[in-house]
Amino acid sequence: MKKRALTGVKPSGTPHIGNYLGAMKPIIDLQNDYETFVFIADLHSLTTVRNAEELHRNTLDVALDFLALGLDPERTVFYRQSDLHEHSELAWILSCITPFGLMERAHAWKDALATGKKDPTVGLFTYPVLMAADILLYQADLVPVGKDQKQHVEIARDLAEKFNGIFGETFKLPEEMTPEEIASIVGTDGEHKMSKSYNNTIQIFAPEEELKKQIMGIKTDSTPVEAPKDPDTDTVFKIYSYLATPPEIENLRDKYLSGGFGYGEAKKMLLTKYLEHFGPAREKRIELAKNLGYLGDVLKSGGEKAKKIASGTMEQVRQRTGLIL
Amino acid sequence: MKKRALTGVKPSGTPHIGNYLGAMKPIIDLQNDYETFVFIADLHSLTTVRNAEELHRNTLDVALDFLALGLDPERTVFYRQSDLHEHSELAWILSCITPFGLMERAHAWKDALATGKKDPTVGLFTYPVLMAADILLYQADLVPVGKDQKQHVEIARDLAEKFNGIFGETFKLPEEMTPEEIASIVGTDGEHKMSKSYNNTIQIFAPEEELKKQIMGIKTDSTPVEAPKDPDTDTVFKIYSYLATPPEIENLRDKYLSGGFGYGEAKKMLLTKYLEHFGPAREKRIELAKNLGYLGDVLKSGGEKAKKIASGTMEQVRQRTGLIL
Repeated sequence: MKKRALTGVKPSGTPHIGNYLGAMKPIIDLQNDYETFVFIADLHSLTTVRNAEELHRNTLDVALDFLALGLDPERTVFYRQSDLHEHSELAWILSCITPFGLMERAHAWKDALATGKKDPTVGLFTYPVLMAADILLYQADLVPVGKDQKQHVEIARDLAEKFNGIFGETFKLPEEMTPEEIASIVGTDGEHKMSKSYNNTIQIFAPEEELKKQIMGIKTDSTPVEAPKDPDTDTVFKIYSYLATPPEIENLRDKYLSGGFGYGEAKKMLLTKYLEHFGPAREKRIELAKNLGYLGDVLKSGGEKAKKIASGTMEQVRQRTGLIL
Repeated sequence: MKKRALTGVKPSGTPHIGNYLGAMKPIIDLQNDYETFVFIADLHSLTTVRNAEELHRNTLDVALDFLALGLDPERTVFYRQSDLHEHSELAWILSCITPFGLMERAHAWKDALATGKKDPTVGLFTYPVLMAADILLYQADLVPVGKDQKQHVEIARDLAEKFNGIFGETFKLPEEMTPEEIASIVGTDGEHKMSKSYNNTIQIFAPEEELKKQIMGIKTDSTPVEAPKDPDTDTVFKIYSYLATPPEIENLRDKYLSGGFGYGEAKKMLLTKYLEHFGPAREKRIELAKNLGYLGDVLKSGGEKAKKIASGTMEQVRQRTGLIL
């Protein structure tokens, strides 16, 4: 039987190739090897978003992005967290056995205090408990996480053990799973990791004109057209390598080394490759956005599948804790 | 239109006359003047009870006690908190706008820290947020509370104002309502307030033999039978006064003042009065306990009535926060 992998996704604005390769693709690829649950963490978004329109648009956007990029709702249970009241219910129950000190030691909370966050909220303090509920409800085996999220899975495991110890065996202990190390994706400035905050991104779903501008704006050195160029220090080459096949990469490397091949041409090749690689997803997203009814159906049906598992777990939790009549 | 009053009840073991006069009767009497909601706070109980059988028995007991003592499920919406997932859902949403400092300043939390409570939990820290949800879900006008609970209603009001300010007018601002000052009920030791912890109680539903022992054990002074006695310093007289009519009280006062009337006789009169006063409730409780199916139906039907209001509020909350598709 396949192991069950579960992960929550939060919108992070218009996705760029760094988001895709570093986070979205590894999540989408889980469906090839696991029984996969992916939820849109809209309840978690409330810790930062206080605007209905923004939250709503974010939810639609992240759903469209994932479906366009290949998340297959037949193979992945894809749903909205807030569609299942079991998440908040289990979070409250777990909070009654969660040591206050455990939350005080959570990295995200310590960072918030250390950086002098103004008026931190209770939600910011307790969200690892909601995360534990997100995971434990589905009896997940594996939770793919980045390094900064490992602690959340540890907390979920701690609370599962604690609950099992007090009330009797109920929850599977989840394990974190660190996806294959992705070399961090360099931005168009050639200096920093690709990130919205450095304004050095190549977006996935931007209009072609904008994409072109982003790619043509990649910083290169001043080697003249006719001179040979070093592919290993060039940003255009690096970004091309993320998307192309090994023979294609070899081909471009040869062009760099032979000289008589300018960065402008390299950028055009990158643009072509980029559009070839993301073209189907770009078209699919446009189609999906035209039919939000379908999107709603997908999430609703995912919610129903998720509910079967979540409500079964809650039934056990109610029996074990005595929340029964 | 009647104002809406809402209150949560937690089991406090076998109820005694102090519980009844100080807390249960004022709650039950609300149904005469208000549109009344009374819920069994089983989710709150989880902050202290970690035993399914105990929680389950507590829930049944408190329901039986209130119904036997006159709570009328036709006039009062009577339900279990855990039957409505809206309580936990709204609690999470409110926690995302609750300042951490507000919870740190909550009396109960400060007391827990001051008395060195071992391993305080997150639930103990955040339960005023759940209380706010309990209240705001029902758009209650009034929340009857003892002095030590006033702060909880203030917190609910604060959070309602804050939510309305951020997301738009949604919640009514609840007011606390301090029931008529009840002179605290003296215990059978004549020294302390009646309380389980002083072991000086007269229980309401104890078997008659035990009741007799409790009443016969009331401490009196050593004035001999034939001498006149001071009713105003005697505990038997005081407890009798809680239950009897003014003419009955006058009659007993005369007996005390004339002399030739012993404390033993006074105690017998109290026992008779006690059984007369609580007899119907005692019988009703026995009948109710024989038919837990009926009790289940009462709470289920109360839950359905409560749900109409709570789900309507949550629908608005979802719209206002953007938890919609």
